[in-house]
Amino acid sequence: MQADLEPFHAIAVSRLAHALQAEGRSIIHMEFGQPSTGAPSAAIEVAHQVLDRDGMGYWESEPLKARLARHYADTYGVAVEPEQFILTCGASPALVLALASSFKPGDRVAVARPGYVAYRNTLKALHLVPQEIEFGPETRFQLTAAALAALEPAPAGVIIASPANPTGTIIGRGELEAIAEVCRARNITIVSDEIYHGLSYVEPAASMLEFEPNALVINSFSKYFSMVGWRLGWLLAPKPQLLRARTFVGNLFLTAPSLSQHAALAALDSRAELEAHLAVYARNRDLLLAALPGLGLRDIAPPDGAFYIYANVGHLTDDSLAFCKQLLRETGVATAPGVDFDPDRGRHFIRMSFAVSTAQVEEAIARITPWFASRS
Amino acid sequence: MQADLEPFHAIAVSRLAHALQAEGRSIIHMEFGQPSTGAPSAAIEVAHQVLDRDGMGYWESEPLKARLARHYADTYGVAVEPEQFILTCGASPALVLALASSFKPGDRVAVARPGYVAYRNTLKALHLVPQEIEFGPETRFQLTAAALAALEPAPAGVIIASPANPTGTIIGRGELEAIAEVCRARNITIVSDEIYHGLSYVEPAASMLEFEPNALVINSFSKYFSMVGWRLGWLLAPKPQLLRARTFVGNLFLTAPSLSQHAALAALDSRAELEAHLAVYARNRDLLLAALPGLGLRDIAPPDGAFYIYANVGHLTDDSLAFCKQLLRETGVATAPGVDFDPDRGRHFIRMSFAVSTAQVEEAIARITPWFASRS
Repeated sequence: MQADLEPFHAIAVSRLAHALQAEGRSIIHMEFGQPSTGAPSAAIEVAHQVLDRDGMGYWESEPLKARLARHYADTYGVAVEPEQFILTCGASPALVLALASSFKPGDRVAVARPGYVAYRNTLKALHLVPQEIEFGPETRFQLTAAALAALEPAPAGVIIASPANPTGTIIGRGELEAIAEVCRARNITIVSDEIYHGLSYVEPAASMLEFEPNALVINSFSKYFSMVGWRLGWLLAPKPQLLRARTFVGNLFLTAPSLSQHAALAALDSRAELEAHLAVYARNRDLLLAALPGLGLRDIAPPDGAFYIYANVGHLTDDSLAFCKQLLRETGVATAPGVDFDPDRGRHFIRMSFAVSTAQVEEAIARITPWFASRS
Repeated sequence: MQADLEPFHAIAVSRLAHALQAEGRSIIHMEFGQPSTGAPSAAIEVAHQVLDRDGMGYWESEPLKARLARHYADTYGVAVEPEQFILTCGASPALVLALASSFKPGDRVAVARPGYVAYRNTLKALHLVPQEIEFGPETRFQLTAAALAALEPAPAGVIIASPANPTGTIIGRGELEAIAEVCRARNITIVSDEIYHGLSYVEPAASMLEFEPNALVINSFSKYFSMVGWRLGWLLAPKPQLLRARTFVGNLFLTAPSLSQHAALAALDSRAELEAHLAVYARNRDLLLAALPGLGLRDIAPPDGAFYIYANVGHLTDDSLAFCKQLLRETGVATAPGVDFDPDRGRHFIRMSFAVSTAQVEEAIARITPWFASRS
């Protein structure tokens, strides 16, 4: 059977947003998870230099891989070798690599619902079977070791996302350790998507590598490092799987953008600038968490990290896509419909990205306040 | 069963070449298919401008897609819509998209042998079955309509490569038309890899779209446009398959590098500079074709296009990988072993890329001439 994927509905909202913008409407883009800031200035400076001196052939930056290894030692206290980093064009192909090189058709891979739509769809595209487990407020919308232990039969793999998309919730260290133990006991391969690491408002997110050295870890420069359109990510592959993963990348994707690799090396040392972005997100998050309950949005997943608010609008709609489009048309504020993350309960949720400027968050709150007031 | 891929052996040769270089040896890199020239100067100029003004989020360039549509009208006389272009991080993910969105596990897809190793391996990674058909000098190492018509049962798809890697041979218009007819009659989906288009030394290569509007066409800015490390390619999807292909790219890969999209638009109008590269390749090809027979290399596939010489060294070895390594160690000239393209008969072949400077080709000929002389 051919793989049958669902569309990413936020793209339809975004398309409408750009159409309205083309008509002259003022739009605040909170529909996608992308920082509105650009790359760190040192990264841009390096890119200018490289543009003038480098022919840019197929290339994998050894200095970047060595620097990433140091980043893991500094951030998580884990020892990894530079050779374990496989550089990719963003986190998406790293996920394809991790899944394609770990599983065979028909294998079941557990994922939390709500969760990032591409997990489900990439699994299906590779003819793997997403085994979705529903989670709600009682587990902070996050996957648990207990739920994984209860699955019969054990799945071949699990995708962990902490901080998660769409909720931003972080899995605590104790739970991560418990998940690692269940997976070892039941021979479940762990793919840990750590793309929102660095963006935490409570405790810092731990890496799954702190608890399971054989986890496959995915990350990128798109979120904390604010380099979305540079398309640079990585798969950190465990040593036993390294040769296999390298063979896959050499056939399926080849190398990552050369200029981005040069720039990313500088970005890793641009801490002050990046922490300033984080401070903006923290302020934006505070403003939204203060304002939304007054609009009747009291049922919000705990946004520990990332830059999302996942809010229940079930008292107003059971069609979140139509709701997002109406909100956009009437206020100019673009959000993502929950159905992208949970086709069933997501009909009652919207996701707002606060990776915009504080002025935009203030303006968005000002616009939606009367709109929600007229509905409650 | 998990997919089992073969390594790309040219990578081992290249690794050895770089190790020797690090020891101070002078190496001429003819092992990979990458231009040694950089991007056109206008592309680099645009990149400098964009770096300073664009935040670079997720982005798909509408101007680039419109310009590509014009490129197809100008070059091939075919009418395609800008929306049919799906921009990817090089041709490799475009191939993954084409195959993943067209076929189901177990489907057989015909490919010519010798052929690009990644066709075979990407098919296997997606749990499709490469149905390799051996071709030799009698068909100029190229796939034919007759061979496709004779396959029983008909395969679900076929990958066409013209100009081909490793041989550079071009399929003529008449044969392309005949292939299209066989595929229509037998309901075979065509994936046409046109990555070497623009690089022709005899007749220009025709696009499969001139004969079959429902072919999926793959191409990139890596070869003719000399922008390898910019990682930008495209899948030109037929309209009936467009929504499906877009859903796949939105989940599996997201967008292509923003800066590269800006630069590529300028590259499409940098004809004079790019034709100058082609003139260098033409001169390099002439030098090699004049010199190699004198070294005992008389059995060479007709290099109509691309920038490769695929030469029979079967009188000297039946282990082309060992042969390439020895040639590299003793002369500093790096080449690719034929086993990458044909695990069986490729033991008797090597591939030389002449996308280097003419001075390097002259130096390579000077170095290998005594080496081959001592062996004949």
